[in-house]
Amino acid sequence: MSKYTLGIDFGTLSGRCVVVSTADGSILADVSMNYPHGVMSDKLPFGDVDLPADYALQYPADYTEVLTYVVKEAVKLSGVSPADIIGLGIDFTTCTVFPTDEKGTPMCEYEEYKCDPHSYVKLWKHHAAQPYADRLTALLNESDDERLDSFGGKVSSEWLIPKILQIYEEASEIYNACSYVCEAGDWLTYLLTGERCHGYMFAAYKGLYDSEKGFISSELLEKLSPGFGNALSDKLYPVKEQFTRAGTLNKKWADILGLCEGTSVSVPFPDAHVAAPALAVDRPGIVSAIFGTSACFMNVDEKYYNVPGICGVVKNGVLPGYYGYESGLCCYGDLFAWFCDNCVPVEYKEEAETRGIPVIQLLTEKAAELKAGESGIIALDWWNGNRNVLVDGNLSGMMVGLTINTKPHEIYRALLEATAFAVKKIFDTMAEHGVCVHTLHAGGGIAKKNPFAMQMLSDVLGMKIRVSGASQIPALASAIYAAVFAGEENGGYADITEAQRAMSAPFIAEYTPNEENSEVYAKLYSEYCTLHDYFGRGANDVMKRLRAISENAKK
Amino acid sequence: MSKYTLGIDFGTLSGRCVVVSTADGSILADVSMNYPHGVMSDKLPFGDVDLPADYALQYPADYTEVLTYVVKEAVKLSGVSPADIIGLGIDFTTCTVFPTDEKGTPMCEYEEYKCDPHSYVKLWKHHAAQPYADRLTALLNESDDERLDSFGGKVSSEWLIPKILQIYEEASEIYNACSYVCEAGDWLTYLLTGERCHGYMFAAYKGLYDSEKGFISSELLEKLSPGFGNALSDKLYPVKEQFTRAGTLNKKWADILGLCEGTSVSVPFPDAHVAAPALAVDRPGIVSAIFGTSACFMNVDEKYYNVPGICGVVKNGVLPGYYGYESGLCCYGDLFAWFCDNCVPVEYKEEAETRGIPVIQLLTEKAAELKAGESGIIALDWWNGNRNVLVDGNLSGMMVGLTINTKPHEIYRALLEATAFAVKKIFDTMAEHGVCVHTLHAGGGIAKKNPFAMQMLSDVLGMKIRVSGASQIPALASAIYAAVFAGEENGGYADITEAQRAMSAPFIAEYTPNEENSEVYAKLYSEYCTLHDYFGRGANDVMKRLRAISENAKK
Repeated sequence: MSKYTLGIDFGTLSGRCVVVSTADGSILADVSMNYPHGVMSDKLPFGDVDLPADYALQYPADYTEVLTYVVKEAVKLSGVSPADIIGLGIDFTTCTVFPTDEKGTPMCEYEEYKCDPHSYVKLWKHHAAQPYADRLTALLNESDDERLDSFGGKVSSEWLIPKILQIYEEASEIYNACSYVCEAGDWLTYLLTGERCHGYMFAAYKGLYDSEKGFISSELLEKLSPGFGNALSDKLYPVKEQFTRAGTLNKKWADILGLCEGTSVSVPFPDAHVAAPALAVDRPGIVSAIFGTSACFMNVDEKYYNVPGICGVVKNGVLPGYYGYESGLCCYGDLFAWFCDNCVPVEYKEEAETRGIPVIQLLTEKAAELKAGESGIIALDWWNGNRNVLVDGNLSGMMVGLTINTKPHEIYRALLEATAFAVKKIFDTMAEHGVCVHTLHAGGGIAKKNPFAMQMLSDVLGMKIRVSGASQIPALASAIYAAVFAGEENGGYADITEAQRAMSAPFIAEYTPNEENSEVYAKLYSEYCTLHDYFGRGANDVMKRLRAISENAKK
Repeated sequence: MSKYTLGIDFGTLSGRCVVVSTADGSILADVSMNYPHGVMSDKLPFGDVDLPADYALQYPADYTEVLTYVVKEAVKLSGVSPADIIGLGIDFTTCTVFPTDEKGTPMCEYEEYKCDPHSYVKLWKHHAAQPYADRLTALLNESDDERLDSFGGKVSSEWLIPKILQIYEEASEIYNACSYVCEAGDWLTYLLTGERCHGYMFAAYKGLYDSEKGFISSELLEKLSPGFGNALSDKLYPVKEQFTRAGTLNKKWADILGLCEGTSVSVPFPDAHVAAPALAVDRPGIVSAIFGTSACFMNVDEKYYNVPGICGVVKNGVLPGYYGYESGLCCYGDLFAWFCDNCVPVEYKEEAETRGIPVIQLLTEKAAELKAGESGIIALDWWNGNRNVLVDGNLSGMMVGLTINTKPHEIYRALLEATAFAVKKIFDTMAEHGVCVHTLHAGGGIAKKNPFAMQMLSDVLGMKIRVSGASQIPALASAIYAAVFAGEENGGYADITEAQRAMSAPFIAEYTPNEENSEVYAKLYSEYCTLHDYFGRGANDVMKRLRAISENAKK
């Protein structure tokens, strides 16, 4: 008798539900819906409140509205009986947090707070807490708490503590009035189950939580801001360390969603970190790589290695039983989209239109006709700064080798090569510090649609790449975990290894390095490394000075 | 009674004649004509002869055909009586040379040689003599002949000796059969006057001729190639050092052109070096600057200073009685044309079309709305290599500071700034070595049409810029010199100072530095200098290695 799970993925702009067969991972239905209020960066929905720079807020009621719609529609569309749905799991952007009262009512629903930005959801990309992040970085560097070593050495403004501290210092009445500050994914799970749990991966990757040492000490937090010492113990849901279910679906939400009361509900996952099982990453040496607007890599190792400049190393952070390593490029598809929007002349647009193909495909075809190294151009891919291994948002893009004969597709190819070199830089850094990486399991639109980019990446890395046919990777992965947490006895699986063998999507392509190209790329990579260190490690901080000059000019 | 002179300018693709009033320099007629065979880089006009890479040839009969047409048409159009034309002068691209027999018949008109590329004109940008240039550089570096110090330290493949040596070694039968190898400008002057003279500026700037030491010694030339020792004394017209006329128009050509026999004919000038009088450059401190596809600067000083990396310093090389300094950027308008052709998105093209303005004007308007430094981008302008002060054709373009928010007009502005910084680098280098430069007299299309570029240049240089209204600058300058060489007694002028005061074009605009902008540009220039030295002076020869990798890939 067939069983099913629901994977519910909350992204930056929309939520999505997939109904997945536990037998083979096939997706029977896939429904998504945009958040009615989207991302608020200019105005609040109430009052006439202008938001300061770098704000990115959301409205919590959007999540429940989207949840209700996508689950009901997906189940209806799939034709599956609710009785055969053995579990559901949520993944969510993180750190995406907001204050609630004791019963889970968001503070922005209180009349007295609805015109205060701090009563709303601070989305992961709310960057206005930067000063608080800088203070915490400085404090940790002075202290003997070395946990920041596992996270690239710098506290990000996107993380939990800077965001809570911003509420504490800028809106003390809301801070005092609220009972909890919770991740949106935890909050939804609480609504569904009545269980308050702070998802372990949220806590570990975004809250600097360590499974042995716990959170940063009260003493340090008190030093950070007087009165803030007990913030984490007072205001957070308790951390749930197990890879397990959070609880079961309560009557109220079973009725709302049209599901059965008592259905298993997973602990929530971060949308980026959940992916590994959907891409059949089941052991050390294999990296899951999702190539979208940015590129996100996850891999595991039995041991902890201190790899400088890697986003995060967390015990049980990607798969249970392993240390999970997170890394990535903060500019991937974004970079090619920028190029297509800003740097492609009318002749290319017209040729693409005549042939009925996207401009990016035309550029790719023309770039593929060049030999490796032929363009004579090399670039540093830091159009959005550098996430790894330099961890520096103030770096910027660079190109060298341009001539009067340079063609647009040559620049495009150089940008594509730059991203491949950046990936190699990350993996080389891991390898130098003990983490073994030998195979890439790639997913996402660009991985499936751009064989030229994947072959180039394989040539540059000297590594086998398998491309997964999976669509909706985070949602599928949440559904795979849901099949584990529902329990073998209910038609699920005994562990994640079994579940992903059955449910992860089949590979649709495989790339192995072309030796001739690899030789040329090795030379170019050596140039990339020299420029990487020159511009990125302090020999010439021109990028930072140019940014400062620019910001000054705009004043 | 009004008198007139003819200025006849032979450029890369066409020749032109202007009829100029000696009273005020006004141009009464201006006629040009393209060379029928243009620039031959693929095929010869006879036989089925493919030309090797880097060849750029011309056909001498084109010059006489164009000369005849433009002179007759211009005189007709002007309505001036030939009897009132007191002199004519020719300027020509250089080093543009070819072999002729004793009577001046080009060797390519001989049936037995017409299928041999070496019987044709080697145009200034014929670059296939590079190996010969390299050999001469090496030889001079080993010798105690230090004349190369005055020319940036490297023999260019564009110069005279490499080109003659290429004929000598690759086509000895033509070399042996010919009586002369002559500059095209000298050859035309010989046809018109019967006087064989090698224009001094041709000899000095392109032939390494020194007014005190003469040409490179026979001993060195013999070392360069056995049997080549007497090449320069055997095969060249004698050098005419005086700023004077070459002779007078003979009957044959007076009849052909419809002019009077006996009309004064100037010594020929290089088209780039002739410009100074047309831009009212009459003393040290003032630089003539012609902003076209490239940018060409001429200035004078009473003394000789050894300025490293400056194209050429020649006694009497720009104005009589001074040392003439030549410098420039090998990529100016070219760079902006490249950007417009390759990097401007369809939205900009459409906006420009809607407004009925050229794309470059739209880019300029948008760039002008930015504040200095706002783009956050800095570039090295070496899209065509670097002519001064690094003298390295293997350097290439670089940009740094690009972000996902960078707009096309920001890149355009950074390119414009880069050319301004490059000019400052040249003038600073001159100043450091004793040559005073304080004012720019600018001419050419971009100087007249782009006030934003001129204001920026003034801000960057901290220097006054006057823009000349002159059109057809080399032709006008040739006409001004013709008025001097015709003699005061015939209605001309006693010297070049008097002639240029009367005949140079009035200024149409003047720019003085904006101090606020100058302060920001000083910071950016400091960054430019650091990058200039890092990429240009050996700290990181990535540009050269990329070029080598590219050339290897194309094989």
